[in-house]
Amino acid sequence: MLDKINRQVHLLSRPQAMPALSNFEIRTTSVPSLKENEILVHSLYLSIDPYMRGRMAGRPFSHPPFELNACLIGKVIGTIVASNNIRFKKGELVRGRLDWADYSIVTDDQIEKITPYEDITLPTWLGVLGSPGMTAYFGILELGQPKAGETVVVTSAAGAVGSIVGQIAKIKGCKVIGITGSDTKVEYLTQQLHFDMALNYKKPNFAEDLKHCCDKGIDIYFDNVGGTITDLAMLHLNKFSRIVLCGQISTYNSEGPDVGLRHFRTLILKSATVKGLVVWDFKDRFEEAKIQLIQWMREGRLQSRENIIEGLDNAPKAFIDLFNGENIGKQLVKIS
Amino acid sequence: MLDKINRQVHLLSRPQAMPALSNFEIRTTSVPSLKENEILVHSLYLSIDPYMRGRMAGRPFSHPPFELNACLIGKVIGTIVASNNIRFKKGELVRGRLDWADYSIVTDDQIEKITPYEDITLPTWLGVLGSPGMTAYFGILELGQPKAGETVVVTSAAGAVGSIVGQIAKIKGCKVIGITGSDTKVEYLTQQLHFDMALNYKKPNFAEDLKHCCDKGIDIYFDNVGGTITDLAMLHLNKFSRIVLCGQISTYNSEGPDVGLRHFRTLILKSATVKGLVVWDFKDRFEEAKIQLIQWMREGRLQSRENIIEGLDNAPKAFIDLFNGENIGKQLVKIS
Repeated sequence: MLDKINRQVHLLSRPQAMPALSNFEIRTTSVPSLKENEILVHSLYLSIDPYMRGRMAGRPFSHPPFELNACLIGKVIGTIVASNNIRFKKGELVRGRLDWADYSIVTDDQIEKITPYEDITLPTWLGVLGSPGMTAYFGILELGQPKAGETVVVTSAAGAVGSIVGQIAKIKGCKVIGITGSDTKVEYLTQQLHFDMALNYKKPNFAEDLKHCCDKGIDIYFDNVGGTITDLAMLHLNKFSRIVLCGQISTYNSEGPDVGLRHFRTLILKSATVKGLVVWDFKDRFEEAKIQLIQWMREGRLQSRENIIEGLDNAPKAFIDLFNGENIGKQLVKIS
Repeated sequence: MLDKINRQVHLLSRPQAMPALSNFEIRTTSVPSLKENEILVHSLYLSIDPYMRGRMAGRPFSHPPFELNACLIGKVIGTIVASNNIRFKKGELVRGRLDWADYSIVTDDQIEKITPYEDITLPTWLGVLGSPGMTAYFGILELGQPKAGETVVVTSAAGAVGSIVGQIAKIKGCKVIGITGSDTKVEYLTQQLHFDMALNYKKPNFAEDLKHCCDKGIDIYFDNVGGTITDLAMLHLNKFSRIVLCGQISTYNSEGPDVGLRHFRTLILKSATVKGLVVWDFKDRFEEAKIQLIQWMREGRLQSRENIIEGLDNAPKAFIDLFNGENIGKQLVKIS
């Protein structure tokens, strides 16, 4: 029963600066027999996440480094195809930190069951109802503490987290400005997600445009990028503003430390607060967030958007594209 | 009655890098007659504060820039020698933002009365019971939120604010490590103020010493200096640590922006919080702080220390010495 062919995405070498296809290899193995308590999961969707860049580099960043010549591990949704575990049954839908592969063998502490709803698509469980949704929810609400009428600036605004952050801030009555990397995404943010404004940071007049948009200053800066965009935003902070540090994607491909403006004098002047966001700090409240996010989706106030690429073989390319700014919404790979 | 000679400290030119005596001049004027509601104050002590460097440079920093060829303004304690104001009487002790001069003419919104206590010296009203004390009190207690057993690192630890911060953290049961710039001050901190440890950042093995002292990591980093010392401290932050940004004296004499390590990735990794401290945000609670600080002084748990230089003529030198790390405790000038 278990003589299935299993394709796995292995890390061959640690990326130098931008990751390249040559850092990865698809290797084919067979699936071994299940031992006591083990469960065999067939992958349906892989979540492609920027934080994995740190693990590939060998830098410790929330998680330990990936091993070379071993299968990569990420968030995956799949179905159970065989189980020696009393708690999990064949056919059940699960989510967990699994292999980037057709099949993963896991124990019951690595997965959680998902109870599907008719009106919620499967990819949503890796997007609005997955880590990006939890990150956005607790980041903007708990760390950001938005008040109606305040100005919220969010970077990587068309990305998995940013697009949800902006929509929640709109629900809370804020003026929302999205910063993104293409005119297509600017249009998506303003036309589809109803952000008040959106700016393409690649435009030569971006600094001026940002100043113009933030004529009342910035109350919450939700930072997914770091670097020079963040330096510019710091110029417009209001008194008692909050900076939510979620990601620093502009620096993930740097080999050295991030050198640039230290913003500390500005932070003092503005009585500002900077808060580092680790979504797992809120894991006891994920269920509460899920219920609220589903309600907002059902009310039509929160849109889920995934960018789905077909085929496990394309997982390395999908990962590299994260850093090219190619994706709108959550980047996923659908396993054929 | 008002034909007194009044020496004033004027700003002649904006300092380039380190301030120099040539930036200042003592000018002598006469005291004009008091108009309606005006009050004449004779200065007793001037408070010499690092933040004034920003105002001299013409940089906006909490307060507008000082004008050239005009008298400098700072915190002063004095006695009223004449008054056309019904609320203030000759002989009363007052504190306010007054001229660096023998005499200031003020209105009643510029000064507050001080009710002296027998066991509290006058200089204490510009130290533990003045802005440094308020800054230390709200900075460590409200922004730092210290818990017993936590490790607190404070910079400029022998300075006006740092020495009070460390003593309050000790009262709250923390392990306190002071960073300072001379072996004399290291001894002062450990022997006189009973800090657990103190380090001289000018020693070649400072980075190693800091690592050794912070073997359990840093829970609160109280930052008066910024720059490379802060960069080093960031390496030792604990999960959920708090960085209180009070001053950045290492950068006040820089003409350009502060360039160096951006610490944002570390802050995310550690779910850390950085909070900019403006003491005036807490002005409604100054009375509460005063009562507590007096109680701690009377219990012998909090020492007040001022470095007093005699003579208005020496005010420019006293200011320059702030950046040479010459002072222990609050730097004051006593008017002869």
